[in-house]
Parts: sequence; structure tokens; C-alpha cells
Amino acid sequence: MADSAEPTITEIRRDLHAHAETGWKEFRTTALIASELDDEFTLFLGGDAVNPDERLGVPADDEIATAIDRARNEGADEAYLDRMDGITGLVATKEFGDGSGPTVGVRVDIDALERSEASNDDHQPAREGFASQHPNAMHACGHDGHTAIGLGLARAIDGDHGFNGTLKLFFQPAEEGGRGGKPMSKTSHLDDIEYFLSLHLGLGQETGTVVASYDNPLSNAKVDAVFEGEPSHAGDKPNEGRNAVQAMATAIQNLYAIPRHADGATRINIGQVHSPNPQNIIAEEARMRVEVRGETAGLNEYMHGAAQRILKQAAAMHDVDLTTSPYGKTTTFVGDEELIVPVERAAETVDGVDNVIDRYPFGGSEDASYLIQRVQENGGKATYMGIGASNPFGHHTARFDIDEDALQIGVNVLTNIIRSL
Amino acid sequence: MADSAEPTITEIRRDLHAHAETGWKEFRTTALIASELDDEFTLFLGGDAVNPDERLGVPADDEIATAIDRARNEGADEAYLDRMDGITGLVATKEFGDGSGPTVGVRVDIDALERSEASNDDHQPAREGFASQHPNAMHACGHDGHTAIGLGLARAIDGDHGFNGTLKLFFQPAEEGGRGGKPMSKTSHLDDIEYFLSLHLGLGQETGTVVASYDNPLSNAKVDAVFEGEPSHAGDKPNEGRNAVQAMATAIQNLYAIPRHADGATRINIGQVHSPNPQNIIAEEARMRVEVRGETAGLNEYMHGAAQRILKQAAAMHDVDLTTSPYGKTTTFVGDEELIVPVERAAETVDGVDNVIDRYPFGGSEDASYLIQRVQENGGKATYMGIGASNPFGHHTARFDIDEDALQIGVNVLTNIIRSL
Amino acid sequence: MADSAEPTITEIRRDLHAHAETGWKEFRTTALIASELDDEFTLFLGGDAVNPDERLGVPADDEIATAIDRARNEGADEAYLDRMDGITGLVATKEFGDGSGPTVGVRVDIDALERSEASNDDHQPAREGFASQHPNAMHACGHDGHTAIGLGLARAIDGDHGFNGTLKLFFQPAEEGGRGGKPMSKTSHLDDIEYFLSLHLGLGQETGTVVASYDNPLSNAKVDAVFEGEPSHAGDKPNEGRNAVQAMATAIQNLYAIPRHADGATRINIGQVHSPNPQNIIAEEARMRVEVRGETAGLNEYMHGAAQRILKQAAAMHDVDLTTSPYGKTTTFVGDEELIVPVERAAETVDGVDNVIDRYPFGGSEDASYLIQRVQENGGKATYMGIGASNPFGHHTARFDIDEDALQIGVNVLTNIIRSL
Amino acid sequence: MADSAEPTITEIRRDLHAHAETGWKEFRTTALIASELDDEFTLFLGGDAVNPDERLGVPADDEIATAIDRARNEGADEAYLDRMDGITGLVATKEFGDGSGPTVGVRVDIDALERSEASNDDHQPAREGFASQHPNAMHACGHDGHTAIGLGLARAIDGDHGFNGTLKLFFQPAEEGGRGGKPMSKTSHLDDIEYFLSLHLGLGQETGTVVASYDNPLSNAKVDAVFEGEPSHAGDKPNEGRNAVQAMATAIQNLYAIPRHADGATRINIGQVHSPNPQNIIAEEARMRVEVRGETAGLNEYMHGAAQRILKQAAAMHDVDLTTSPYGKTTTFVGDEELIVPVERAAETVDGVDNVIDRYPFGGSEDASYLIQRVQENGGKATYMGIGASNPFGHHTARFDIDEDALQIGVNVLTNIIRSL
Repeated sequence: MADSAEPTITEIRRDLHAHAETGWKEFRTTALIASELDDEFTLFLGGDAVNPDERLGVPADDEIATAIDRARNEGADEAYLDRMDGITGLVATKEFGDGSGPTVGVRVDIDALERSEASNDDHQPAREGFASQHPNAMHACGHDGHTAIGLGLARAIDGDHGFNGTLKLFFQPAEEGGRGGKPMSKTSHLDDIEYFLSLHLGLGQETGTVVASYDNPLSNAKVDAVFEGEPSHAGDKPNEGRNAVQAMATAIQNLYAIPRHADGATRINIGQVHSPNPQNIIAEEARMRVEVRGETAGLNEYMHGAAQRILKQAAAMHDVDLTTSPYGKTTTFVGDEELIVPVERAAETVDGVDNVIDRYPFGGSEDASYLIQRVQENGGKATYMGIGASNPFGHHTARFDIDEDALQIGVNVLTNIIRSL
Repeated sequence: MADSAEPTITEIRRDLHAHAETGWKEFRTTALIASELDDEFTLFLGGDAVNPDERLGVPADDEIATAIDRARNEGADEAYLDRMDGITGLVATKEFGDGSGPTVGVRVDIDALERSEASNDDHQPAREGFASQHPNAMHACGHDGHTAIGLGLARAIDGDHGFNGTLKLFFQPAEEGGRGGKPMSKTSHLDDIEYFLSLHLGLGQETGTVVASYDNPLSNAKVDAVFEGEPSHAGDKPNEGRNAVQAMATAIQNLYAIPRHADGATRINIGQVHSPNPQNIIAEEARMRVEVRGETAGLNEYMHGAAQRILKQAAAMHDVDLTTSPYGKTTTFVGDEELIVPVERAAETVDGVDNVIDRYPFGGSEDASYLIQRVQENGGKATYMGIGASNPFGHHTARFDIDEDALQIGVNVLTNIIRSL
Repeated sequence: MADSAEPTITEIRRDLHAHAETGWKEFRTTALIASELDDEFTLFLGGDAVNPDERLGVPADDEIATAIDRARNEGADEAYLDRMDGITGLVATKEFGDGSGPTVGVRVDIDALERSEASNDDHQPAREGFASQHPNAMHACGHDGHTAIGLGLARAIDGDHGFNGTLKLFFQPAEEGGRGGKPMSKTSHLDDIEYFLSLHLGLGQETGTVVASYDNPLSNAKVDAVFEGEPSHAGDKPNEGRNAVQAMATAIQNLYAIPRHADGATRINIGQVHSPNPQNIIAEEARMRVEVRGETAGLNEYMHGAAQRILKQAAAMHDVDLTTSPYGKTTTFVGDEELIVPVERAAETVDGVDNVIDRYPFGGSEDASYLIQRVQENGGKATYMGIGASNPFGHHTARFDIDEDALQIGVNVLTNIIRSL
Repeated sequence: MADSAEPTITEIRRDLHAHAETGWKEFRTTALIASELDDEFTLFLGGDAVNPDERLGVPADDEIATAIDRARNEGADEAYLDRMDGITGLVATKEFGDGSGPTVGVRVDIDALERSEASNDDHQPAREGFASQHPNAMHACGHDGHTAIGLGLARAIDGDHGFNGTLKLFFQPAEEGGRGGKPMSKTSHLDDIEYFLSLHLGLGQETGTVVASYDNPLSNAKVDAVFEGEPSHAGDKPNEGRNAVQAMATAIQNLYAIPRHADGATRINIGQVHSPNPQNIIAEEARMRVEVRGETAGLNEYMHGAAQRILKQAAAMHDVDLTTSPYGKTTTFVGDEELIVPVERAAETVDGVDNVIDRYPFGGSEDASYLIQRVQENGGKATYMGIGASNPFGHHTARFDIDEDALQIGVNVLTNIIRSL
């Protein structure tokens, strides 16, 4: 039978892991999801799944083209690539049973991080041969598992066994950096959602633990800054340059020194710092990425405003030009009590679940926040759940991995919740 | 005639320009020089031309391997590549006439810069089709012309017409960054040099001008610094990271602020600033290249010592590790009056030369300084000459070019000098 | 009757306000308290009230001597000045009734701030003629009112009317900067305290509001830093100096940039920045005061450790010497529920009290923390109460004032509580 | 005889040393000079000696008043204090012989530095009892000796013995900081000067050495900067302050990092750094003094412009206000060959002079530059001479002193020169 060849969700996860694709480049991933669901679900791909005009932090055209080529070479179906038309992400919808039940949305994110993966033998993906084959791309945050759970759920839900409503699966691209959540929220797919479930594997919880509601992620704004000055020979004409590196260093020192805020936690960090000038030339260009966060949207705005002022004046101080552009953004949320109670009840009955936590602070940032906000604005109920997955190394590190037992637990928890709604 | 196929020195210069190779990667260039001279001169290649243990700022092995492959693909003779054995540079020697005359050394540098070239039509190399075909490599300092002049001199000198001594041609690799001069000086080739000529095209002088002695280049030291900290998630665990970017920014701010010195000019600059961490991770690594200069070797040491102290303490301040390594170094010189007078006399009689300057301050830095120092220590006389070459854009910029009329002038000036010695 | 001449607590407050004395200089204040209480209470002055060896941030001997002289000139009783022997502060104890009741401690602080006071007519103390007569000293935090309440309480408590225990009044010096709390806690006076009450006026609460327990003040550490370098003439010998100002500026920039902490709020600030060198001399000395805080003692230690590291490396970076010394320190506390409930009950019945809050976060820092900690370690119950006092301008500003109606409310609340215990 | 009581120039120097007065406060000094010269010379005091509107860096009115009171208390003649009317400095003129000779100007500066003096016994002024009696004022640059030489010259020059011209003595106030030279140059006293002599003791030259012309002092500009922000409590409201100390530290770091200039020496330094806020209040005010120098007036302008830009943007970066004001300024000069030759000749014949240097670079800055510039613009000849004076400790240090043997040498050299003109 054809089904005999159907990969398990663990196999799917490993396939995705081996072919990690970073934000807005998840062409093979999207095509794989599409081919899994096409028989049963109505599919919305690319620009039909996300609002193209709202995308943030989109890579350059040639990078996108290279990513499409790679996906094609690695087996992505040309028909799906055509339908995507350069934009990743997918929404899949299906009515089950008599359709009298609620409309339930489930969101999983599908992108990898820009980093390389450990190759040592005590790292399971390396040992078992499914470490990322793509340079500078690694599923180091578990989104490969999220995607596999989403596909497992699609297989598991079945109208005959208790769910008579409509299921909408949101396979969101570009979560890293907070780039894909907002554009996916700016579509009509969320308008009729009554219950909205999103989830994350791991986050420090062991396999067997379920968190019914991660609350209060930090709001987040990411800004790219480019300093452009004037080159000159550092030996002959040191005074004739306009030094982009000096401006950048001044900005960095002062960005980290933005005053703490009385109203709550704030964050600031800088990455992707680059200035290519040889050391004998005054730097004509320097670029970096700035990230601010706040416990509330207001605190995030406080940090964002201060960062913009510092960037601007650091540039002016060294007589260089500054260009800033938004790279990504997230907001915050609190799970709805009306949904959390059913989640707890459903989780408790799942085999392998031995610890159910009602609410837990999120800590980081998450652009599911935009989807949750949209659902809640429309009167729907939403939560962001945690599925424990033991792993000794932290998220985003080279040796991050997930306990694959958590995948089926995740599928079962979701299935149980949805059937109970 | 057979000679009809021999390329002109302008054609050689254009060929080198189109196949620009940066420091320690000049495999095609060295092979081309070797094939030009092999019939007439005794050749010393690679490790026989430079002292391998004294090399500074050598690229990683895989970069060298890639450069050799490219040279092979672009026509470099396999026999010469074999003899180089991974090290570029060449010394060519020949005795002329009865050998009773002096031993004369002529040094030209052969490397390109790490930068891309302008592609607009008002840039002659682009318009005429000989712009660099190699990404991030460009002859933006005229060393292509220097090499061509060296080869033109080899053709022009002829024992029947006045020179009865020994000519040693030093085709020095990796001048940019001051990486090849010292290792070439640490060989025995310079031991018996009585007169030593080195030269540079351009340097702000128009075609027709000859400077008999550029004096007092700034001493220079280049240091690579790597800051290594500890990554952590900037939202969840901002305090657990050890931030390499903060350390680097602190270093940069304080490096530029090293006190000026009462005894003369000093310089400081920073380039190649890179930290690859995504903006949501505290930076675990940051690297940069530092360059200091001083009007004297002592002033250079003052700057070098202060820079090392600042780097070290900036790292310690942010609890990150620091590794520094030398990248390049130059010293200073003053031309010998005994050689400058003959240079002036010889230059004045060359067709096209309308302005001879005796001495001029050099301004920048130059690792011919090590060869000159070695010659002078052994009792030889040396000078560093300028051959004017009109060009509207500055050295090291994307639109740098040289007036090709200066090439033949350079050959003729050298030839005249050598015959007069 | 003699009592007809007894000043009201408002008059006492105004007298203290007019003669504001900063930390460790409260000689006139201590003498005034002593003379008020001497008939009824047993008095412990100076080194008998605080542990001399534990004092922090003590001014220089000549400043102390000047302060004593001023107190003498302004009417402080010579006998009390003698007993103080250069150290301020006072503990007053008295047994009431049959002594069968509990031992209750009440702590008020008595020092002023180092700042000048507004002189405009819309500032009540200026208009009514009781603004501070002392340059650079002002009761801008309400401790004059605290002292007056303490004295009012001493008058009000009376064994015939319900209190049969022992009352210990702690008039603590040098609260500003967190310098007097620890040395007062390191005496035996607190050993037998069963209930401990401390209080603050204002803190943003209107007159009529009582806060039963201010909780979780920030732990705080203050460090004085002196950078000592080498002077040299900035024109002739800029390289020969070792620049204390450069070191200090580097430290300041990096201190404000200490990473935020995942576990809670932290603070950093710098004041009293001074470098006296003329602008044509490289600075040989620079000094400043650093303050760190943390929501917990652990967070405070995190900040303190980071600050010490930054100070040290900033000095080393510029080759200058660093001396640091502790200036003040506070810890944190949470009020005991067993005491808070009686406080609430007692406060509710006081005339003029219309709003009783059980617990409120403290926000700032407070060295009553050491006394509270000591009481709680010994099994006693403690709280830090708020007595609302309307005032339009913030604490520590030039126009700070308190609504004097709050003074009697404070006395009545304390009296009610103590009688109820 | 009355003359038996006349103090020697060494005694005058010691009297001035003991009563050191800093710039624009030289009331006792000016009165002493006036009383010495009144019988023989026509005197122009205060606003008749300097242009009041051109004064820079004038202390506050109350400081001036205090200085006048002190001068009065220390014996300054009331009549001269009246004539000064709050402004120091003096020009004394006299025609000698038949007046047929040239008009010669001699300028000496009269002010002390703002610093305290060493009190140890190996410091001669302390040991001999003539160390400065004024706190924070010390003749640490030898201007006491300059003034004494000026007065000695007045005594020595005598029409019967060879000088038949007009002598104008310029006793210039406020040289430190470059505040008095410009206003003295903006008067008509210099209009008819044919020969202009100015001088400095010491400067590293031993007693017996005379430098005929110190050339090329650095141009200099001094700027006072005040940053004004908004205070707030550093614990409660860290985000509500606008931090003047952060702005100042950012400025300091970047000021020292102004790029070196290809055209010659530049200098930057910062002094008088003060922010009075207690460490628990975000700093509302910070002030400092900035000094820049350049080998040429153009280089000085380059530094001045860069400093102003950095100050402005550092303030804007931290949202604080900036006020800058000029404090002092000097320009540069080269001595006239026509005067230097006679100076050399005259110096060689003086007893005790054993080494005459024609020209020497000045190194520091000097506001005699404005007077020299004015003389040279009018066609006069000028020089700035050095009179060697052995002293083991550097100018401006606490232990600076001068070999008093140099005083008479200075008088004799000047006298010889003037007679020879």
C-alpha cells in the first residue's frame, strides 16, 4: 500500500532537520508540507498565506532565488514552487464531520536559524546522519519538530472520532527575528477562529511536562543600522575619512547603556556587526543589527525610541550617514483562561504527560503574538502552549536537539484538546 | 618575427590587472613572471625567495588551496606551481657582461588589494575590459604596473650596452599589510647588494615626475584581535553571556583615543570588524584588525604597546578572552645620498621626464623598508623612488587607475640608473 | 505651666528643617532629640547607639569638627555633644506600666540630603521662613518629619492608657547613602525586639493613606572610586601623562552598560564626578561615586561585582591606579504578615486616615533593611510602613515639602498600633 | 638712604610667589608693579591696558570682588585698585634720552596657576618661607620671575647709557588659559612698536642658556562645556532622568578620539570635570573644560570644529542641553630673523650666558602670540626668547621652582638687546 511508505513524524522531523531553511527561504519545507496535506486540506501558499506587503526582514532577491534553486534541487515539487511565487508559508484548512463544531486554529513555525550545527558524535543529529546539510542554517530552536507535530495533527484529527468543526493549520515562516508573524496575522484566515492554539517544544521543560499557557513574552523590535562615511587612507589622510566604525562603536557603547526603566524589564542587544574596510583605510561602511525588548509594548517603544536617538546622534557625531530599517517585531500576550482550563484537562489524560503547569512566564519574544492578538481582538480565545522536550543544550546553540518522544506527545495533546472543544 | 607575439608591458600589466591576486595568493602572477624570465634568469621561487617562517598574515590553508586551483585554471604553469609549493614570490638573478660591475637589486611588489573594482564605463579597466575578474581583489595600488616595469627592465638591460654587473630582481608578495617584506629580507639574496632600487607608481605625482627618494615612511604594525566570550539568549539570559561585541566596542573607542605623542606623528585605525551573532544572542565572538603607525620605530612601538594594553583590558572588562596575532609590520628608512644623486642624473635624461624631485616624505608605510634596512646594514646603498603616474582617483579606491605611459618611463629610468652605476 | 512652652511636633519639624544636617553630622539634631527625651527615657548616644566600627561613608575629620562647631553655635547642649564624642544617632528606651507587654522598637531616620533648597515663595519652607539655613543641606526626603513623629510618639505613649511594654526609639543617622542602618543594626539594642516599626512619609501617597508594609526595596551598594594617574602637560607631553579622566569616562560608559539581569530589576548610577586638573594638564586624579541596586541581594551582588570589574579594568586600560571604598549599603526585606494585620486594623481607626493599603512595592532602597533583618533573624516581627503626606514635588528635589497634617496622623497611627500589640 | 630699602628683584619675585594670584585676579601684583614704576613711567592700568570687551575666561563677579578684598588686605594701594576698576594688567611707557631711538616693547606675564604648592622642605619656596599663601594658587610656571625681570629691566635701562628710544613694558594678565593676550593685543599700545621682545624662563633649558627665538607654538582654543539634563531618582525612576554624566562621558571618550591630522600635530585634553549630583540621583548637570591645539591655526580650527560637533551630539544623544563658551585662545608665530640676530649677539656677551640657541620649537601654547601677530602685522619685528633657568621639576607641577640666578641674567640680556637696537 502506498501508506506503507508514509514517513513517521520523526522521519519528517529528521528530513526537515537535515534540510534546514532560514526565514523566508523555507521553500522545500513549504513544498513538503503542501505535498503531505494536499489530498485532504485546502491549501493557501505564499502570498495567499501571508500578506506580502507586511513582510519584514526579507532577504535580497538573489538570496531568495538561490534558495528556490536549492529547494528544487532537493526535490521540492515545481508546482508548489510556482504557487509560492517566491513567498514561503502555508495555511491549510479542512472541515471535519458535519462542521457544526468550532473553528480551531493551530499555528506552528517552520524556519531554522542562521547558524552552523555541531558535527561531533555526541550530537545526535550528527551521529545519526541528519544534521543540517545547509551551511549556516540549523534547526536549533525545534521548529522542525513543530512542523512535524502540525503534520502529525493533520493525520490524527478525524471527524469520525469526535471533532466536527473546522481546522486551520498555520505553518508560519520566518519566526526567528519576528518577521513572519505580523504578515500572517494581516490576512483573513484568522477572522473566524474561535480557539487558537500555538506551541513550542522544549524551553527548558522536560519531556512529559505540558505548560497550558506561556504568558507575557517580551515585546521586541529589531532594527538594522547602516553607517556610511567616507574612506581615506589611515596613514596619509586620517582626517579626511568619515569613520563609520567609530560611529558604530559609539552607538554600541551607548545602546547598552540605555537607562533601565522603572516599569519593568527591558532588553538591548547587538549582532551582525560588520565593517569590511581593510585596516589601513578609514571605514566607509559599518552595519549592525539592534534588538530591543520590553516587558510591555510601551517599554519596547521606550527602548526603540532611545535606540533610534542614539544611533542617529552617534552617526552625526562622526559626520557619517545613517540608514535604519525595521527587521522584525513582536508584541506580547496573555493566554485566555477559557482555553487554558480545557488545555490542562486534555493534557492530563495524554500518555507520557506527567506534569501540567497552568501558566508560566515566557521570557523571550514570539511573533505568534500578532496572531494571538488578532484572534483575541475578534473575540476568539488563544493560548501559547509548551510541550516539554528534554535536551541538555540550550536553544539556539550548536548542540541543541529535542527528545523525539515529545513529538507524539505534542500530537496527542493537540488532538485531545481539539476533540474536547 | 617571433617577437611579434611577445606581449608589451602594457599588455602584461592589463593581464595582471584582470587577474588580481591578493597577498600570499599571487600564484598566477608568480608563474607568469617565472615564465617571462626563465630563459634568461636564474629563478628562486616561493620558499627560496622568502623565508617561510617569517611570513605574516598568511591566509588559511583552504584559501591558499583555492587560490592555487584558480591560478591553475587560469593558465599558471603546473611546473612553477609545484616549485612554489604553496608560497608565492620570486627572486631572479643574472650576471651581465663580464660581471665586473656592481650587484644591483630592484624590488617590485606584486600583490593586489582585497576590494572590489568599479564597473562603470568611465573607469578605463572596466571600459577596456581588463577590470579584475576576481571578486574582492583589485590592483588598486598599481602593483600590476610595478610588476610590469620589473619585467620590462629585465628585457631592457643588456650587457652589450653598458651594464656588466649582476642584476637581482625581487618580485615581492604580500606588500599590502606589510606581510611579505620582512620574510623576503630574511634570506641571503640581499647580502651582496651594492645598490638597491625600489619604486612606486603614482602617489599623487603626475606622469613625468620622478622622485629620487621617498623618505621616512611611517613604521607600522598590524594586529589581529579576536574576542571570545560566551553566547546567551539576549531576551532570556542577558546576564549569562560574556559579550564580545561590548568588549570590542570599548576597545575601539579607546584605541582611537590613544594619546598623541610629543615626538611626532602617530596613527591608529581599525578595519575588518566582524561579529556574526544574530541580534538575539549575546555575541560570543568578535574580531577586528588594528593598525598602528609611528613616524619612527619608537613611536610605532608606543602605539603598539598602548593598543595591546587597551585590547587586553577591554576584554577583561567584559570578561571575554582575547587572542591577538601579528598581521603585518613595516619599519622606516631614509634613502642614501650616494644613490640619490645618480638617480636624479639618470632620470633627467629620460624622455618624458620633466620634473625630478630629490626627496619627498613618504606619508604611508612600506615593507620594502625591511629590504632597504638589510641592504644598508650590509653597507649597500638604497633608495625608494617614485615614478609619477597621473590618475584622478586615490590609491586603494574602487576607481584607482594608472596612466600607462608611466610604465615605459619607469623601465627607462631604471635602465638608465643601472647602466650609470 | 512649663508645658505651655513645649513646641508642637510641627514646630520641631520646622526647627529641624531650618537646621538640616546631613549624614554623620546630625549633632544639633541628636542633641535636640536627647533634650526632648532625657527626662523620661534612658538615652544611648553616638557610639552607644551605633557600632562605630561599622560606620560607612563617614565624612573627613575636619568636616565633622566643623559640624560640631556649628551645632554648638546653634544651641546644641554641650553635655550631649560630649557624650556623642563625634558620632551622631541615639537610642532611647523606656518601660511603660508594669512592663509585662512586648518590647517594641520604632525606628526613624534623622539626616538631611546634600543639596540646596528652593528659595521661591511658592515653596512653603521658604515662604514661612524655615527653609534650610545650611548651605548644601536640605530635608528633601522628610526625615525632619520622621524625627518629629518619633518625638510625638514618645510624648503620646503612656502606660496608663494601654501600653505596658518596653518602647525603644531608634533615631538613626545617615540613612541617605545607606550608611547608618548597618552600624545601628550591629548593636545589642535590637536583640529583644518583638515588634519593630519603621516608616516613611510621602513616597507618592496622599495624606490620609497608610501603607501597612512597603516590601522589597532594592538592595543597594555604594562604592567610591578614585583614579590616580600621572599629570603631564597636554601640549608638550601628551603621551607622558596617565589620564585619570579617560579612565573614568571609560568606566562610566561601561558601568551604565552592565547587562540587565534575567532575574529582576537592577540599577546603576554615578554621581559626584570630579577631576580638578586644569584643561592643559593631563588629569592625575578623578573621583566619582557609583551606586548599584538589585531587586534581591543577589542581583545587587551581581551589579556590584560587575561594577568592580569594570572600574578595575578601566583603570588598567589607561595605566592609572584605582582605589575603591564602600560608601553605603542596604539590603531588602518583606514585612511580616503577623504585624501587618494589626497595623492595618490600628490605622483604620485613626482620624484622618481614609485609605489603608496592605502591601506596596518600595521601589527605592532603605537601610532600615539591616535593622529589620536583624529583628527578623531574632524571631521578631517587623514592618516598614508608609504615612501618606501630600506634596506636589518629588523626593530629593529642591521643592520637596510634606503636608504637616501627616505628622499627627503618623503619631496617632504608631500609638494605636503599639497599644494594640 | 631710601634706596637701601629697595627690594632686589629676587625679593620681589619671592613676594609675588608668596602672594600668587591667578588670571584676572592679579590685583595685588598689578598694584605692586604700579607702585614700583609710578615715579618714572606713564602707567595704563586695567581697562586702559587691556580691551575689556575682548577678555576671555573672566571669573565670576564675586570671585573678582573677593580677590580685590584680599589684595587690599595684603597691602595693595587703594588708589591703584580704584584705577584698575576690577580689571588687572598694566602697560608702562617711558621715553629715554632724546627719543630718537626705536620704540621697543617688552612683554611679561604676571599670573599664577590654579593649583596648590608643595610644602615639603626640599621645595625651596617652602623651606625659605615664600611658598604661596593663597589656596589653589601657585606660581608654577615662573611668571613671578617674568614680572621681576620686567621690573629689573625698568630699573636697568637708562638713557645715559645707550638707549634713546621709547620703552613700553607690557605686564600681561591671565596668560594661563590664553585669556589675557588677545585683549591686550586689541589696544593701540602696540601700534608703534618697532621691536617686540617677550620671554619665558625655564622651559627645560639650564641656567646660562638663551634661546633667541622660540617658534611655532601650538595654536590653542579652550571651550567650557555645560551639560544640563533632568534629575530623577536613580532607583525609582531611572528612565525619567536625562543624564548629564552619560552625555559627558560619551563626549570625553570621543573627544580624545578625534582623528589625527595629516598636516601636523594636534592636541586634545579635558579638565575641570565636575558633576555634583549625589550618586542616587541621575545627574542633572555636568561641566568640563576642553582644550584643543594645533600646530597651525588651521589645525587648531580642525580640532575645535570636531570638538564642538562631538559635544553637541553627545548631548543630543542623551537628550540633554549643552552650553559651550570660549575660555581662552592663542595663535602661533615665528620670530623675525632681523631681531633674532641682534638677540643672539647681545646675549652672547652677558655674564653667565654660556649657550645661545638661535631657534627652538616652542611645544606648548602662548598668548603672547596675539601681541606678536599684531606687531608683525604693523611691520614691527618680534621674538619670543627663552632664558634658561635650571629646575628639576616640570612646569605646572607642585614642586616647580626657578633658579633665581636666571633673573639677573634675564635683566642683563634684555638690557643688552635694547641698547643694541
